Amino acid sequence: MVWNLQTLPLKLETPVPSDIAISRSQTPKNIEQLAEEIGILPEELDPYGKKKAKVSLGVLQRLENVKNGKYVVVTAITPTPLGEGKSTTTMGLVQALTAHLHKNSFACVRQPSQGPTFGIKGGAAGGGYAQVIPMEEFNLHLTGDIHAITAANNLLAAAIDARMFHESTQKDDALFNRLCPANKQGQRPLSAVQKRRLKRLGIPEVDDANKLSPEQRIEIGLGPGEKGHARRTQFDITVASEIMAILALTTSLEDMRERISRIVVASDTNGKPVTADDIGVTDALTVLMRDTVRPNLMQTLEGTPVFVHAGPFANIAHGQSSILADKVALKLVGEDGYVITEAGFGADIGMEKFFDIKCRYSGLVPSAVVLVATIRALKMHGGGPPVVAGSPLKHEYLDENIGLVEKGCDSNLRKQIENANKFGVPVIVCVNKFATDTEREMKVVLKKALSYGAKRAVSSSHWSMGGAGAVQLAQAVVDVTTECPSDFKFLYPLKMSLELKIVRIACEIYGADGIELSSEAMEKVKRYEEQGFGELPICMAKTHLSLSHDPTKKGAPKNFTLPIRDIRPSVGAGFVTPLVGEMMMMPGLSTRPCFFDITIDPVTELIDGLF
Amino acid sequence: MVWNLQTLPLKLETPVPSDIAISRSQTPKNIEQLAEEIGILPEELDPYGKKKAKVSLGVLQRLENVKNGKYVVVTAITPTPLGEGKSTTTMGLVQALTAHLHKNSFACVRQPSQGPTFGIKGGAAGGGYAQVIPMEEFNLHLTGDIHAITAANNLLAAAIDARMFHESTQKDDALFNRLCPANKQGQRPLSAVQKRRLKRLGIPEVDDANKLSPEQRIEIGLGPGEKGHARRTQFDITVASEIMAILALTTSLEDMRERISRIVVASDTNGKPVTADDIGVTDALTVLMRDTVRPNLMQTLEGTPVFVHAGPFANIAHGQSSILADKVALKLVGEDGYVITEAGFGADIGMEKFFDIKCRYSGLVPSAVVLVATIRALKMHGGGPPVVAGSPLKHEYLDENIGLVEKGCDSNLRKQIENANKFGVPVIVCVNKFATDTEREMKVVLKKALSYGAKRAVSSSHWSMGGAGAVQLAQAVVDVTTECPSDFKFLYPLKMSLELKIVRIACEIYGADGIELSSEAMEKVKRYEEQGFGELPICMAKTHLSLSHDPTKKGAPKNFTLPIRDIRPSVGAGFVTPLVGEMMMMPGLSTRPCFFDITIDPVTELIDGLF
Repeated sequence: MVWNLQTLPLKLETPVPSDIAISRSQTPKNIEQLAEEIGILPEELDPYGKKKAKVSLGVLQRLENVKNGKYVVVTAITPTPLGEGKSTTTMGLVQALTAHLHKNSFACVRQPSQGPTFGIKGGAAGGGYAQVIPMEEFNLHLTGDIHAITAANNLLAAAIDARMFHESTQKDDALFNRLCPANKQGQRPLSAVQKRRLKRLGIPEVDDANKLSPEQRIEIGLGPGEKGHARRTQFDITVASEIMAILALTTSLEDMRERISRIVVASDTNGKPVTADDIGVTDALTVLMRDTVRPNLMQTLEGTPVFVHAGPFANIAHGQSSILADKVALKLVGEDGYVITEAGFGADIGMEKFFDIKCRYSGLVPSAVVLVATIRALKMHGGGPPVVAGSPLKHEYLDENIGLVEKGCDSNLRKQIENANKFGVPVIVCVNKFATDTEREMKVVLKKALSYGAKRAVSSSHWSMGGAGAVQLAQAVVDVTTECPSDFKFLYPLKMSLELKIVRIACEIYGADGIELSSEAMEKVKRYEEQGFGELPICMAKTHLSLSHDPTKKGAPKNFTLPIRDIRPSVGAGFVTPLVGEMMMMPGLSTRPCFFDITIDPVTELIDGLF
Repeated sequence: MVWNLQTLPLKLETPVPSDIAISRSQTPKNIEQLAEEIGILPEELDPYGKKKAKVSLGVLQRLENVKNGKYVVVTAITPTPLGEGKSTTTMGLVQALTAHLHKNSFACVRQPSQGPTFGIKGGAAGGGYAQVIPMEEFNLHLTGDIHAITAANNLLAAAIDARMFHESTQKDDALFNRLCPANKQGQRPLSAVQKRRLKRLGIPEVDDANKLSPEQRIEIGLGPGEKGHARRTQFDITVASEIMAILALTTSLEDMRERISRIVVASDTNGKPVTADDIGVTDALTVLMRDTVRPNLMQTLEGTPVFVHAGPFANIAHGQSSILADKVALKLVGEDGYVITEAGFGADIGMEKFFDIKCRYSGLVPSAVVLVATIRALKMHGGGPPVVAGSPLKHEYLDENIGLVEKGCDSNLRKQIENANKFGVPVIVCVNKFATDTEREMKVVLKKALSYGAKRAVSSSHWSMGGAGAVQLAQAVVDVTTECPSDFKFLYPLKMSLELKIVRIACEIYGADGIELSSEAMEKVKRYEEQGFGELPICMAKTHLSLSHDPTKKGAPKNFTLPIRDIRPSVGAGFVTPLVGEMMMMPGLSTRPCFFDITIDPVTELIDGLF
């Protein structure tokens, strides 16, 4: 059933004003109106103010007999450091689909992290006339999901610290008395989480801790393997945390609790993993995360629906918005509708993780890939000079240069199209049009894209024209998802060894000749397989600025071996992360962070300087 | 105008069920209904889900011609470690006023911190049949104010760190180039916050940083006084932060921005204070705090309105809910209505800070004090054995003991009544009734209370009976605020020296003979007066378990000198904090925190174990 949705007309200006000026010039619909238009019941909606709301997972049950809509992922060729406009394309595409082609569609994107908002100009709300609004709400607290994750991480850290402190300062008897205090009747009832710990230790369940032998008690109070365990620790930003990855990958509150319980916080001195459940904090963390599982509803500049939900790092984690948002959206749009979901980074990372991790856990079958390219990035891959954020672009990027464009197509664009096709999913190439692009350059790209296996290739002007500028792209998505059935398959089976799974990604997707594990990585591979984590999917932590591990190598590098420095497990989230080089988990601010320019008018409450 | 408010009837049970069971047994009204009932316009309300909402400060302007209601503060005698029921009394009192006496009334309380919720049994939602509901919402994220403060603190910490790092690793020229980057025309425009810094440095304002001499540039980029400044740092919990105190004391978003700009983050090597504004982060922090200034509306078990807003620590900070919530509530209840606001800790701390700090900044005149006492605490002050959390109460507390009760009245109750009267505000003593209290004991307290200067003294059974149990208390509040005009005065004028202000509090309120400043404290007093902070009010950081600095000294200690170990300034919040002994700014978890017992049913989402 096609939505009877009131669209918001755009008043296009030239030159295109700043993102925040455009965002502010549009009055969003009351979020309750939008929810009603797209078939969300009042009892399924929790408004947070008038412009954003949480949507109950009850929608999934109510609409369980509705067939899913088409499921389209937006990814990109290897980007310049300036980004090639995936979010903008995602918004432009849904604006075109719904406001211009009158098809139900939903955009699903990640919630941005606070660091970029206050540190460097940028954000993830899209840009120009293809944005999520209001941009301030999107870029600041939203409905508090990231804050809830921070709170959950803090509680987990406090729980670990407290346990270490109390274990190191108390005798076993005192610990037992405090961990299993006697009630007035002298019994020592165990909490549910303590009973689970007993079970894992192979101790028969008891109702009263008095029935435990002193040896067993020690196992509870102070697992001998945990004694004196030294811990290195560090700050990570919230979006790099495993709990954030869990939110993005979970399929229900129950599944979330299960995943939280499996978070490995340490290894004991016998090499056994110690989990969040072992330190008794599973349910408390789930309590803090209770509201986060509900996707956050916002809207585009043209009044079409957007889910903003979860924001895991695209390097250390899998960089995808949530499975739950996609699932709810697929029901709401219905069989003839479209869910456009964005994958972080370039296709070698974002798309691969989307298929091999996110789709594996969701069970959803993708219908098509929209691969975003820009003439600028293609010229860089064709041998153009380095593109540096904050420095003016060199003339190669401003003047026509067919040679560079062709070489960029023949290397990076070709490889990324071929990669998508390895998963059996049809590809639409979308060239995000800039004012400096020439018609001849554009023709080259569209032609080459088709020759390398894309089903369609279009140029798109959503940044300067909104949905009207992306109608061709939207039509291509409609055509391809109708005409070209997806034959989706994973790149690797889970049963493969960790090492072979890494090899397959490195060779098939990145074009490496093989991999080289450091001795540390080799040890970890062995340990994780022994601990039973060998069948988890792989979440590569690699630079997004090259298909290889070397960010200076553009195009489609060949003849290289991918070095694996270390491996981190995210057992709760459900993947293992090989580190290809150093990853910054707590990025610092520059000398002059953009917070110098962010101002607020305390009377009108208008915020300036966000973009 | 009396509200036409739908009250929620209670189904009283005996024995009184657990707090969470009671909370869950009552279905709260939709928050939009409550808002409408008490005269909040739809455009002034931002619901956060269906049971809590933010209320716009626009109410203050719309109702500026409405006279304020009566303003009543709830405080207590020096408590046992178990607490004497201030929050419970606050809720019972408004339930009685509105649901039983049909007077408009509002309760204003603090938002609880996460530590107690997951660490020790307890919370601040009241208890028994006198509670804020839903209790889970109240105790968990509410509308995210505390999280916003955490985020603002994190940004401030990152800004300080970044500035120190970049100053220590870059030459002056490089710093200048980065802090004042040239645009395409070669000009170096300054941001508003940089211009303010120039002004404070006494450098004439320029539009283009190129016009600054190298010497002046150094002053901007790398104030010579700031060079090489070493910094000690630590974790504080969010509620101990100055930004939390600012939220509680601010009177508008504009005032908040002003206070944030004045936060002192360091002293430079010349002894001059370095502020948040000096490091350029004032507006960015205000942006993060934008939504927090709006009070959060919830309801009591009987459906009457409650504001839950701000939660500064009662030791290091002033421990009061927000001025803004009180102001909005005073307009909403109207001239014949009542705002019941709670002050943290016992009257020697909470009430004194309420009068000398909160009322000084708000300009509001308090109408009456409700002083909560319990027979239990009075027995302790009369010489009963120590009361220890987690240990069973000794028989003195369970059996009638007139002697102990009398001695407790003659010491602590008497002193706290006298203290309240020093401020010219009439006192109502409320004995929060326990099942073990005898009639004879109760009679003693009520009689003694009147003899020491209370205008009324009543016993109250709100915990077991809700508002119906507090009708006598409510009537006493109505009578006293009608019959006994308040002659409110501060304890000290701001013009007094810091030392003399501390002396006055110590001698007049605590009963000390004098104070003794450590050499560090003496130095700080001198420095802060030189820096221009000498006229700030005083926020004593003292144990709440005794009128003196020694928590083991009960009753009304005499013949002691109050030791001042150190002094901390909160220039943005607007007070100076003398530390009387050690303050824990990052309390740890016990061996068996209550998170072991907190569970959630992932299907029904019901949370258990919170109380």
